[in-house]
Amino acid sequence: MTSASNEEPSANWGECMEAAVEIARKAGQVIREAVKHDKCVTTKSSAVDLVTETDHLVENLIISSLRAKYPSHSFIGEESSAAGEKCCLTDNPTWIIDPIDGTCNFVHSFPMVAVSIGFAVNKELEFGVIYHCLEENLYTARKGHGAFCNGLKLQVSKETDLSKALILTEIGAKRDPETLKIFLGNMERFLKAHVHGIRVIGSATLALCQIAAGAAEAYYQFGLHCWDIAAAAVIIREAGGNVIDTSGGPLDLMSRRVVAAGTQEMANHIAQMLETITYERDDYNANNL
Amino acid sequence: MTSASNEEPSANWGECMEAAVEIARKAGQVIREAVKHDKCVTTKSSAVDLVTETDHLVENLIISSLRAKYPSHSFIGEESSAAGEKCCLTDNPTWIIDPIDGTCNFVHSFPMVAVSIGFAVNKELEFGVIYHCLEENLYTARKGHGAFCNGLKLQVSKETDLSKALILTEIGAKRDPETLKIFLGNMERFLKAHVHGIRVIGSATLALCQIAAGAAEAYYQFGLHCWDIAAAAVIIREAGGNVIDTSGGPLDLMSRRVVAAGTQEMANHIAQMLETITYERDDYNANNL
Repeated sequence: MTSASNEEPSANWGECMEAAVEIARKAGQVIREAVKHDKCVTTKSSAVDLVTETDHLVENLIISSLRAKYPSHSFIGEESSAAGEKCCLTDNPTWIIDPIDGTCNFVHSFPMVAVSIGFAVNKELEFGVIYHCLEENLYTARKGHGAFCNGLKLQVSKETDLSKALILTEIGAKRDPETLKIFLGNMERFLKAHVHGIRVIGSATLALCQIAAGAAEAYYQFGLHCWDIAAAAVIIREAGGNVIDTSGGPLDLMSRRVVAAGTQEMANHIAQMLETITYERDDYNANNL
Repeated sequence: MTSASNEEPSANWGECMEAAVEIARKAGQVIREAVKHDKCVTTKSSAVDLVTETDHLVENLIISSLRAKYPSHSFIGEESSAAGEKCCLTDNPTWIIDPIDGTCNFVHSFPMVAVSIGFAVNKELEFGVIYHCLEENLYTARKGHGAFCNGLKLQVSKETDLSKALILTEIGAKRDPETLKIFLGNMERFLKAHVHGIRVIGSATLALCQIAAGAAEAYYQFGLHCWDIAAAAVIIREAGGNVIDTSGGPLDLMSRRVVAAGTQEMANHIAQMLETITYERDDYNANNL
């Protein structure tokens, strides 16, 4: 038995996905225009955790549009959460939204900026839409239907040898000496293992899309949020890849840590090499209310 | 008095630049096609210093085309140098060519791959052409004529405050423990100074183009080559930026180290914070023949 709020037949999620694509493209247009102008920047959790008026504007645009269509659905958005709304995944159909992934890039007009919209029902991710606004690349995947970029099917890398891997990661917002020591220590361990390279592009969702596209072998990060992972996790899995917790166990969307890789072997190898950086869970406030 | 080999009037360099643009586009087409297929990879200076058949093919394409037009000119190319040709900048008009900058990216189909063609006369850089093959962005600049991307004028960031800077760097091919310690130490110093972020995209020339475009405040690297810097240095300077040695002195094209920034103040600030990683000069063999 499903609850009253998620009785819609699963065929309907395809219609929801079309709505996500439509609003992601609209949001992308707003961001493309805004990137040309000066940005009004403020900070959130730290001096390097930036937010702009455009983040708020775009999140409102996306949520109000989807809420009008799906009034019974739940919404988790980066900026609503920062403003104190509880970040809690229930069985209700839930939209998980990052209006601008790569806000620091956006502030600098560095061209790695994306809109990310994930969708979960009964706590299971059903589809993901990521729109690389400046290059107009649209990444989409729906559970059981494959992953695509601008309509072309995506396929992960099948590499299992760490010494032939290109690895992606992000620095995260915490910059205290202890966190930096672990972050740089993790990087050093991979470089000493002679990986081909490490890239840091400043957008978790677009980095994860590169894993789905087979253009890099693995991604790891501590400190990202559920709205950075939700859409990308479906896209990577539908492209044949693996998304797990940094402990090696199953992905916990609220745990703020992830390893994604083309192969299970590569994902496990990466997870085993990582020293953990502890971040407060995304649902910390929700659980303590 | 100029020597016989460089008597051509400077107006002619514009014609040479047109030839560079034409061949860069052709080379880009070859790379765009090759990136879709499996690559035959071998290594050069280290297990992570990669080269493919396409690097050789594209360098031959570029040099043979330009040599046919300008038989008296000199050529410095990444793969010719790796094959033992001397890498020596004379007063003769000299083309400085990287057929595929971002070879590791190219091997993985990670979309940051560029053709770079710089041109120097009397050891002075006259113009630079960088073609971002996969996105079809063409960066061009000629001394005294401004810098452009697809015809749009480029302008560097005027930011002078390090704590508001987005900084780009690359890891380099040397991965011994001592080199890694200095590389990570430099990164740590900038993160502790609360820069907005650090990005590593795997292509020095495209990272330098982002400085020219004002999308990042500074770039630094030890271990890059003259063919990574030559074209980009003209593009950044013509966009109003600064390209200097990591010591804070003037750029030495053969020294394998660089700081580039929108402002002189930012460039000096970066240079002062760097611990040096020593690489063999590009003209080492030329000086010892």
